[in-house]
Amino acid sequence: MPRFRMIVEYDGTSYVGWQKQENGHSVQAALQNAILSLTGETVSIRGAGRTDSGVHAFGQVIHADLSRDWHPFKLRNALNAHLMMAKERVSVIDVLQVDESFDARFSAVKRHYLYRIINRPSPLAVEAGHAWWVPKPLDHEAMHAAAQMLVGHHDFTTFRSVHCQAKSPMRTLDRLDVARSGDLIEIRASAQSFLHNQIRSFAGTLKLAGEAKMTPDDVRAALEARDRKECGPVAPPEGLYFMKVDYPGDSQ
Amino acid sequence: MPRFRMIVEYDGTSYVGWQKQENGHSVQAALQNAILSLTGETVSIRGAGRTDSGVHAFGQVIHADLSRDWHPFKLRNALNAHLMMAKERVSVIDVLQVDESFDARFSAVKRHYLYRIINRPSPLAVEAGHAWWVPKPLDHEAMHAAAQMLVGHHDFTTFRSVHCQAKSPMRTLDRLDVARSGDLIEIRASAQSFLHNQIRSFAGTLKLAGEAKMTPDDVRAALEARDRKECGPVAPPEGLYFMKVDYPGDSQ
Repeated sequence: MPRFRMIVEYDGTSYVGWQKQENGHSVQAALQNAILSLTGETVSIRGAGRTDSGVHAFGQVIHADLSRDWHPFKLRNALNAHLMMAKERVSVIDVLQVDESFDARFSAVKRHYLYRIINRPSPLAVEAGHAWWVPKPLDHEAMHAAAQMLVGHHDFTTFRSVHCQAKSPMRTLDRLDVARSGDLIEIRASAQSFLHNQIRSFAGTLKLAGEAKMTPDDVRAALEARDRKECGPVAPPEGLYFMKVDYPGDSQ
Repeated sequence: MPRFRMIVEYDGTSYVGWQKQENGHSVQAALQNAILSLTGETVSIRGAGRTDSGVHAFGQVIHADLSRDWHPFKLRNALNAHLMMAKERVSVIDVLQVDESFDARFSAVKRHYLYRIINRPSPLAVEAGHAWWVPKPLDHEAMHAAAQMLVGHHDFTTFRSVHCQAKSPMRTLDRLDVARSGDLIEIRASAQSFLHNQIRSFAGTLKLAGEAKMTPDDVRAALEARDRKECGPVAPPEGLYFMKVDYPGDSQ
């Protein structure tokens, strides 16, 4: 059966998250429904990363095995037509046919996320649901300095959800950059893989650094404590965007 | 009575437009309700520009006369608290106390709008309701060249709604620039004042220029025809943002 790799964008606001669940509508179910209504096939698709309810994606990657040899552009357009008909906030950006060795989750060599904070006294109107509103002034340079304490190969027990199912808390964080443009503070995180709630835990802790409630040394100490209680309050999901996944052999 | 000038942001999706109307909830009513619940005063506020249903604002300007001498920051925060309680998608960004000669509408010397097009084959998910989705490739340089035919002092009958209530179709368009960054095409328009649907009429016509269905000379001829039928299909409201208003004496 031909295997297809797809880049998928979604607005996570009205979904229970990426993963199909009993308690509500998921992005995965939205895509599987679109495939079913297009092809008549009940398929189980795999995503490169699970995202929680409210988390958005510009570049989730999935793979799906279909019985027909679809032209990639036609498959993209037909799936989008079905997604629009069903009023889903999910869009297929790109489709490639790949060989069976490709696995959206297990072949991934790097995942890129963005966390957006809007730092201003007034609440969000246009951007409500699409960024974390932080009214108190944040020092983004202090946030960036603190973030550098987290880059590298570490035990990230402090920064993972108690519900995290990963066997090991060890991860290699390649990048955690904080930059400001006007009211917008962007945190960019890259790693081969992340633990559950890891980036939202970083964002909540870096906010404390931006308020001068934690120094970079405090953040390092929190990491070294390997204790969930040392983490700042987890930042809300609506600031988080799954941006891109790198695979071997992709031109960058 | 002290007069207050406010910069207001809103998401126009769920409103009938700026102006208070019988047939649904308006941004003006949302703000007047917030003032009423804060101060007990029923006031009529004036906006710098009327926006249609679905049109957004980052920088609408209003003025309101209140009986109390509010500290501007406290007034902003208190109004925002009431707007949030009412679950409005409206936020007060800035408040200034001004003298009675200031009028949000009549003192304005320039208004700035942005029209956003996302030009890609796939429908919008994250940005749905916040840009015009145009799937066919557009040549933004051709759009910019055509736009320059419209800059200056002209009779804009071709580019105004048949419902436009302005006495004269003459306006001076100071700027109509088209630029692209990736999939995003931004049209920036500035003038002292605009006719009803003028920018959406421009955007719809410039789209035809971007598809090579109109040359710059065709756009000039459409302008000179002073005939509504020569206008391209009016672009949808969700791409339009009211960005900023200039007043005499403002530092730019």
